[in-house]
Amino acid sequence: MINIDRLWDRIEELSNIGRTPDNGVTRFSYTPAEHDANELVKSYMQLAGLDVSYDTVGNLIGTKYGTEGLSAILLGSHIDTVPNGGKFDGSLGVLTAIEVMHSLQDQNITLKHPVKVIAFKDEEGSRFGFGMIGSRAVAGTLTDQDLDMKDVEGISIREALIEQGFEPKNIHSSKIDNVKVYLELHIEQGKVLENHHTPVGIVTGIAGPLWLKFKLAGEAEHAGATPMGQRKDPLVAASLIISEIEKIASKYSDAVATVGSLSVTPGGVNVIPGAVEFTVDIRDINEQLRDCLEKEIKDYAAKIVNERNIKMTIEELQRVSPVLCSQDIQNAIKQSVYELDYPVIWLPSGAGHDAMQFKDIFPLGMIFVRSKDGLSHNPKEFTAKEDVKAGAEIMLNTLVKLDKA
Amino acid sequence: MINIDRLWDRIEELSNIGRTPDNGVTRFSYTPAEHDANELVKSYMQLAGLDVSYDTVGNLIGTKYGTEGLSAILLGSHIDTVPNGGKFDGSLGVLTAIEVMHSLQDQNITLKHPVKVIAFKDEEGSRFGFGMIGSRAVAGTLTDQDLDMKDVEGISIREALIEQGFEPKNIHSSKIDNVKVYLELHIEQGKVLENHHTPVGIVTGIAGPLWLKFKLAGEAEHAGATPMGQRKDPLVAASLIISEIEKIASKYSDAVATVGSLSVTPGGVNVIPGAVEFTVDIRDINEQLRDCLEKEIKDYAAKIVNERNIKMTIEELQRVSPVLCSQDIQNAIKQSVYELDYPVIWLPSGAGHDAMQFKDIFPLGMIFVRSKDGLSHNPKEFTAKEDVKAGAEIMLNTLVKLDKA
Repeated sequence: MINIDRLWDRIEELSNIGRTPDNGVTRFSYTPAEHDANELVKSYMQLAGLDVSYDTVGNLIGTKYGTEGLSAILLGSHIDTVPNGGKFDGSLGVLTAIEVMHSLQDQNITLKHPVKVIAFKDEEGSRFGFGMIGSRAVAGTLTDQDLDMKDVEGISIREALIEQGFEPKNIHSSKIDNVKVYLELHIEQGKVLENHHTPVGIVTGIAGPLWLKFKLAGEAEHAGATPMGQRKDPLVAASLIISEIEKIASKYSDAVATVGSLSVTPGGVNVIPGAVEFTVDIRDINEQLRDCLEKEIKDYAAKIVNERNIKMTIEELQRVSPVLCSQDIQNAIKQSVYELDYPVIWLPSGAGHDAMQFKDIFPLGMIFVRSKDGLSHNPKEFTAKEDVKAGAEIMLNTLVKLDKA
Repeated sequence: MINIDRLWDRIEELSNIGRTPDNGVTRFSYTPAEHDANELVKSYMQLAGLDVSYDTVGNLIGTKYGTEGLSAILLGSHIDTVPNGGKFDGSLGVLTAIEVMHSLQDQNITLKHPVKVIAFKDEEGSRFGFGMIGSRAVAGTLTDQDLDMKDVEGISIREALIEQGFEPKNIHSSKIDNVKVYLELHIEQGKVLENHHTPVGIVTGIAGPLWLKFKLAGEAEHAGATPMGQRKDPLVAASLIISEIEKIASKYSDAVATVGSLSVTPGGVNVIPGAVEFTVDIRDINEQLRDCLEKEIKDYAAKIVNERNIKMTIEELQRVSPVLCSQDIQNAIKQSVYELDYPVIWLPSGAGHDAMQFKDIFPLGMIFVRSKDGLSHNPKEFTAKEDVKAGAEIMLNTLVKLDKA
């Protein structure tokens, strides 16, 4: 069904644009490399029989008109990258969607619904520290104020848009209404599928991150002259909390909680710490469960610092709502996985994706393909050709099912 | 017995030399300020009827000859300071010893044994990163090689000695033989006496520090895309170990174990740590117990990293042998404390002192006086006048007892 060699060659060809010395890819939004990448992808879209245009923020959209005047099915992902990223993150989703449309054309299969394949502008946020610009515009949630965000050279999104010939005044016209479903294929960026020895997975939802910063203050004293029972050591308190965070999060089926950074003041070998700061990244696809997990962690921390006479403040760094994938789309993917004889594996997405922007706007679904060693945002990011083929076949079959539904 | 006003005024007078803007004291060894301080202390010694001289490394020694040709009783401490230190750390021990001798002279009390009051050169090590120069010389353990140590300006101890008119070629002549006992009074630098509401304490020994650096390596992965059960998180392992270190050390009566520094790599909020390093400072006055504590900590850490598939290496940063105080001297101090109607409190010294250098060479003992809030190495370091008086009276009575013994 799928022409896997054509798809595989295009992954390689696209990765030559923005190629870095250690075989990675760097393509920031609104740069010449990203423009060239879009023009190449545009040519692929045209060969697939799509009607191609850029919208007002620079999303590249290829449309195949349906046989009936129905709402649109959107397929998409992004082709921008992090600095020195890989060739699969984002690009694979766009190129697979194009290949799916190309294969349907090759086989003279027509769909009732119009299909729009979109290469969203700037998912990663590498340039402006503000990602998912294109998908926000399509969702209709991108604001004029957002365009004030600046890159390290002081160039705003608005200025970058104008420089590339787009129209920041009309960003609201990028909103796409009358959408039936949104479907995205992406690399997993984790090792769940690898551990299950399976090429594809059905995404149940996208776990929005909640980031907290814990600040604990005790008393810095001489490590030799202060008996154990007379200490107010915030690092021991932090250690008890960090150990318990793992225990608490492990009780939840999908949730994860991670202490990724921690600093100790004053930090002398022979000085009892006076203050400790650490961050906690909490994720679940179910917001109520994430709230429960957050409360359990905060309650345990409060108990520990209370027992130990340690002062604690908790700062909220960000709170992004999780997004659930549509049950109907999950079922359509499941049927396709089943028909093609792959194991059926459900998993949440821990990382964010363009699909998140469509929460409460239209139904969304995602297909994950296996990442070697779980690596991403890295030149070593890799997905095997047979896994790409499996993902593309499942996307094609799922699209046909959704068109019929 | 003691002229507390004379002693208190001298503490104040000496602290004017090297006074810092925020009312602290900075006196590094072999500097003009430290020279002036020695000259002032020399004048106090002379007024106390001592025969005063500098030895080859610059120790200031005031001798009172005894009525019988016996071995010497040494009383001492230091008058150098850390940067912006206090006026009591070290100086109090030297000035109290002089006041004891002055009071005995005032009361026409003679002793059988010769007494040598010593202001040891450079206890703190602030200038050359190598402390207890004077007490090492008196113990006979200072080597020619030690004199090669340099300060931040590249001046060696040898050059500093020569510049001040001392004789580095003859350092071995600083060794004092035929010593009966060494007795030192020092501020506690902790809060044990404060918590016991008592001005003085009998030191049982000086806990030599053992410093270990633990290096744990796990796997840095995406915090969102890696389920709890699939992680190799070295920070959770470190947290379990740090919590347990407190528990293990608390089982020992005198031991302390402190994790004072910890670093996490890569340290991103949304990245599971890949590596963690932390230090452990372990102290006990009993070396065998310290060895037991070290083993318990290492065994527990090995168990944790083994269970979690984390790699661990342990580097030894320093291992200083602890020193026990002489039972006879402790008993003499105890008798004096008892006679003067103070509560009898024994405690170990967590910090190092000149007395350590006399381990296995001659019997040593120490008297601690209460530190307000446990502070030291700080302009706010303070010991109340009545506590100084108590300490001086106990030192005088102890000296008289040791002379008779």
